Amino acid sequence: MYKNAATPVAVLGASGYVGRELLGLLDGHPDVTLAFASSESESRLDGHDLIPLAEAEARWDEARLVFSCLPHGVSAPVVARAEAAGARVVDLSADLRLSDRAVYGLTEVYRHALPEADVVANPGCYPTASVLSVLPFARSGVIDVTRPLIIDAASGVSGAGRSPRRDLLFGEVAEDFRAYSAGNEHRHLPEITRQLSAVAGALDVVFTPHLLPVRRGILATIHVPLTRELSRGEAEAILLEAYTHEPCIRVLRDALPTLKDVIYRNRLALGVAPVKHVSRPMLTVVGAIDNLVKGAAGQAVQNMNVMCGFPETRGLSC
Amino acid sequence: MYKNAATPVAVLGASGYVGRELLGLLDGHPDVTLAFASSESESRLDGHDLIPLAEAEARWDEARLVFSCLPHGVSAPVVARAEAAGARVVDLSADLRLSDRAVYGLTEVYRHALPEADVVANPGCYPTASVLSVLPFARSGVIDVTRPLIIDAASGVSGAGRSPRRDLLFGEVAEDFRAYSAGNEHRHLPEITRQLSAVAGALDVVFTPHLLPVRRGILATIHVPLTRELSRGEAEAILLEAYTHEPCIRVLRDALPTLKDVIYRNRLALGVAPVKHVSRPMLTVVGAIDNLVKGAAGQAVQNMNVMCGFPETRGLSC
Amino acid sequence: MYKNAATPVAVLGASGYVGRELLGLLDGHPDVTLAFASSESESRLDGHDLIPLAEAEARWDEARLVFSCLPHGVSAPVVARAEAAGARVVDLSADLRLSDRAVYGLTEVYRHALPEADVVANPGCYPTASVLSVLPFARSGVIDVTRPLIIDAASGVSGAGRSPRRDLLFGEVAEDFRAYSAGNEHRHLPEITRQLSAVAGALDVVFTPHLLPVRRGILATIHVPLTRELSRGEAEAILLEAYTHEPCIRVLRDALPTLKDVIYRNRLALGVAPVKHVSRPMLTVVGAIDNLVKGAAGQAVQNMNVMCGFPETRGLSC
Amino acid sequence: MYKNAATPVAVLGASGYVGRELLGLLDGHPDVTLAFASSESESRLDGHDLIPLAEAEARWDEARLVFSCLPHGVSAPVVARAEAAGARVVDLSADLRLSDRAVYGLTEVYRHALPEADVVANPGCYPTASVLSVLPFARSGVIDVTRPLIIDAASGVSGAGRSPRRDLLFGEVAEDFRAYSAGNEHRHLPEITRQLSAVAGALDVVFTPHLLPVRRGILATIHVPLTRELSRGEAEAILLEAYTHEPCIRVLRDALPTLKDVIYRNRLALGVAPVKHVSRPMLTVVGAIDNLVKGAAGQAVQNMNVMCGFPETRGLSC
Repeated sequence: MYKNAATPVAVLGASGYVGRELLGLLDGHPDVTLAFASSESESRLDGHDLIPLAEAEARWDEARLVFSCLPHGVSAPVVARAEAAGARVVDLSADLRLSDRAVYGLTEVYRHALPEADVVANPGCYPTASVLSVLPFARSGVIDVTRPLIIDAASGVSGAGRSPRRDLLFGEVAEDFRAYSAGNEHRHLPEITRQLSAVAGALDVVFTPHLLPVRRGILATIHVPLTRELSRGEAEAILLEAYTHEPCIRVLRDALPTLKDVIYRNRLALGVAPVKHVSRPMLTVVGAIDNLVKGAAGQAVQNMNVMCGFPETRGLSC
Repeated sequence: MYKNAATPVAVLGASGYVGRELLGLLDGHPDVTLAFASSESESRLDGHDLIPLAEAEARWDEARLVFSCLPHGVSAPVVARAEAAGARVVDLSADLRLSDRAVYGLTEVYRHALPEADVVANPGCYPTASVLSVLPFARSGVIDVTRPLIIDAASGVSGAGRSPRRDLLFGEVAEDFRAYSAGNEHRHLPEITRQLSAVAGALDVVFTPHLLPVRRGILATIHVPLTRELSRGEAEAILLEAYTHEPCIRVLRDALPTLKDVIYRNRLALGVAPVKHVSRPMLTVVGAIDNLVKGAAGQAVQNMNVMCGFPETRGLSC
Repeated sequence: MYKNAATPVAVLGASGYVGRELLGLLDGHPDVTLAFASSESESRLDGHDLIPLAEAEARWDEARLVFSCLPHGVSAPVVARAEAAGARVVDLSADLRLSDRAVYGLTEVYRHALPEADVVANPGCYPTASVLSVLPFARSGVIDVTRPLIIDAASGVSGAGRSPRRDLLFGEVAEDFRAYSAGNEHRHLPEITRQLSAVAGALDVVFTPHLLPVRRGILATIHVPLTRELSRGEAEAILLEAYTHEPCIRVLRDALPTLKDVIYRNRLALGVAPVKHVSRPMLTVVGAIDNLVKGAAGQAVQNMNVMCGFPETRGLSC
Repeated sequence: MYKNAATPVAVLGASGYVGRELLGLLDGHPDVTLAFASSESESRLDGHDLIPLAEAEARWDEARLVFSCLPHGVSAPVVARAEAAGARVVDLSADLRLSDRAVYGLTEVYRHALPEADVVANPGCYPTASVLSVLPFARSGVIDVTRPLIIDAASGVSGAGRSPRRDLLFGEVAEDFRAYSAGNEHRHLPEITRQLSAVAGALDVVFTPHLLPVRRGILATIHVPLTRELSRGEAEAILLEAYTHEPCIRVLRDALPTLKDVIYRNRLALGVAPVKHVSRPMLTVVGAIDNLVKGAAGQAVQNMNVMCGFPETRGLSC
């Protein structure tokens, strides 16, 4: 596609699952052009030459905006150098998500701060699904913070990256299912708790991720303790009121989302079920996203769109 | 295998996933011989002729023990007729699980009642995984019944049976994951609640099943509210004390089970993780079974073994 | 997307896998608008109302072009009525593929005849992959027609449709692989033989399809007897010369395509390997397509684009 | 299981997929006991301690028979040392399959030579499926050796081993299918050709393996050129006559085998389809095995049983 006066962008760490997804989205984006992309392990991808990071660091001036898909720990200092060199950055690593150095790029929540942002910390995949699913109830004041909010979430293997690991071999993952980081050991917990507590006040969250034998997608089943009974219609109304104008959020009526509703899309799909046969009110909320799109590369593009003044869903299928 | 003086048994509804699993186990069992097996849809299976149920009903006298894998609703009256004709019965349907007409066949709990039982109601797959995972904590008095016990469980598709249904086509299930019967709508909830309440006293249970893109296996992630903190070692000790002599239960140390640990085996594998960063004590327990084996056909054989005085794990791989 | 002066089109049989794929492609096509879509089993899909076929038959005048995704046998008479009512038709069923009533819509071969065509018979998925993979060698006169051409092809389950069938359940297909219609019993054989014989002269083809445990994609492994040795470079040169200007065909160098190269794209990917250690020259050609896209809905759109004078790849990702 | 006077055996390379399968089979074998097992990467497996190979080499005297599941290239010298130390060996690597130092352990063909064998080279998985499927026709003299015999075979990922490799990650293999070593580049070709030529005389074989998104199983679709027409019944009769007394080979009537017929079993299942619409007679033969059982560990146990005078299927499910 011929791109007139397109904004030059760069991608660091382009050969992982997230980087590749991002390259694909940028290729189809009418308002940007790829200045350069880096990888340490591959030199060519989908028609693009990839250069080592060391080489990329000499070329910050070629890119107006830099996406970092570098590993956690590696990313932060590179982001700092890119920023110092005058580039705006969307950091897809976890490095800056709990820091004040960056705007937290949960687009639907921090949209207002993005146009002025120099550095945006793109949220984790689990936090994106979890926080957006619960936030409308937190804002409505219906969450009973004296009881824990339980999140059991399951992700496709692309969430674990593309490095060769025995436990991610097809022969190990197919026909299997497992919990991991149980007992609130997962890195994404503070990200979730921070965002929810900012609105609902301090509350206990129990977050248990699982590994699914699928390639992409996250489903979060969230049990929300309530201060009062909500019918299915009332709960849906709270979500619909919060999200009716959101192009990337779909609230289902009388139904729960599945991965099929969201994969390959920059979309969160949401559904609810009031819990019967319990003595104190609870609501089960189910949220689904594609971990590589709304959970990573797609939301990064959505953030870039707002940062750069492009239409928010440009280049995205929502 | 030549079987001398073997006990004749029969299988009703042999062509579904559970019935086929059961036929396979009985074929390898040295102490029994298959008198007859019924199916409405197939006439031959794994070297056995299958007869219509109507025909089977004329032959109760040929079988000392009858396994019913008939559909829920269909099974109960047939079981009654088999019983009236003098056969002992293991009913794998849900029909009698909440009834006093049958011994509830959770072998590890009701073993003492099985030798005298005429009719045994084989437990549901989800209840088997859930109840056995929680019961030792209930017996130890460490469950805080003022807060809900949350069970998020996921099952392979064989749990949904072998009837042609569009939503169970490969094209629909592969690369997908979904919750169903959310909001405590699943038939297995009363079975779980009844068994746990009998020991722990009245308590709220929130049970949400999910459909996994695998053929067999159930993983239950269970969040147990506690009256006091338990370290991982203390929690494991409670399980080990309860189950150390159980041949079909495996308690893992410092690890959580996955489906791989249990499929094709008559085994429950168990692991625990105390929940950090919460203000009131909680424990996450993960239990895994093969829904077709310990969750159905295998436990049925285990029950038969106890009913008939055979060694409990005869014909089973635990 | 606002579509100014868009061409109104209709889809018959919209709720199967092919129909749904087609609806999705048409939704994203800037030059067409959906006049109506029919289904007997569903009334709503992806934001479109679906009407029964009987109702659709009263509305031919609303559509300039009609896509029929009706079942084989059902489609032909409906196509005739739509044609009689003045609509142009792309028939995705097998009904007219061997008939002279329709232009055979293998776009790369019959492109010249499409602008004037009233009825186009969209090719089968296996023939699309097979014929386009072999045709350049047939045209070059290097095929030895005294020896058989062997095609072993494997397809994802969406090729078998979305009707509930026991043999297509997840529990039956996952972890399985099977040949079917072996011995040249498959309906697609005459389609393949007809197209190849038209160029190469009479030749024997042995075509054996297989069912893969994947949702979409066809890989055809084709063993071509040659009149003379071809090096890998020479064989690639024949393909490159034939297809260098084809936007939907990708010839790989020193590599063989896999399903990953083509799924979700309107693309045939091709690679070759000369066969060593044989006494008479042979070439193995591997071709891959997405059976729902280049093998069905995508090629139908490609055909429509040529028929209507739109750019050939409009609305398609190649 | 208590094993009285059991034969002590050892396993080298026990932690790969084949080694683990073998350990499992030996655990259930009533006539053997495990003296020791080695692994370089793991120290404990299924209740057995694993020792480094260097340590194992000092203990040859403890084992009457040694199974080597060591990598190709590594195995041969170790086998030589074990043999020199007086142990009998079943070598599951490819190292000795084309050598005269070892008996080729295709049990059904070389059964007579096994009782006296010191070293047995266990066949490759593809050769096991291919050779046994074709041999009865070769012996009957119905193969036309002037035309090539075409084998398109597909294997589950366990055939590629358990080492961490990016191309074997779940995210790469799921929903994919690919040919590899096309053009007769695969190491198993000489093994196949040697066995078939020994009976049929020199003939061309074209062998193309494929990688399936399943964990275990091989399906070989084999196109056999014939000297004369064979009806389905005649072809089945040739197989039945050859294999009627073989406990590990199942000839299907009017049906083709699928992976489901064989996985987890030491079984080759076979079916045929005469090829219609061709000018010279051909037969398609489809053979299926579990690559880890009849294609590796199971056949190794079958060979051991014959070597040691145990019943041939002891410890095996056929």
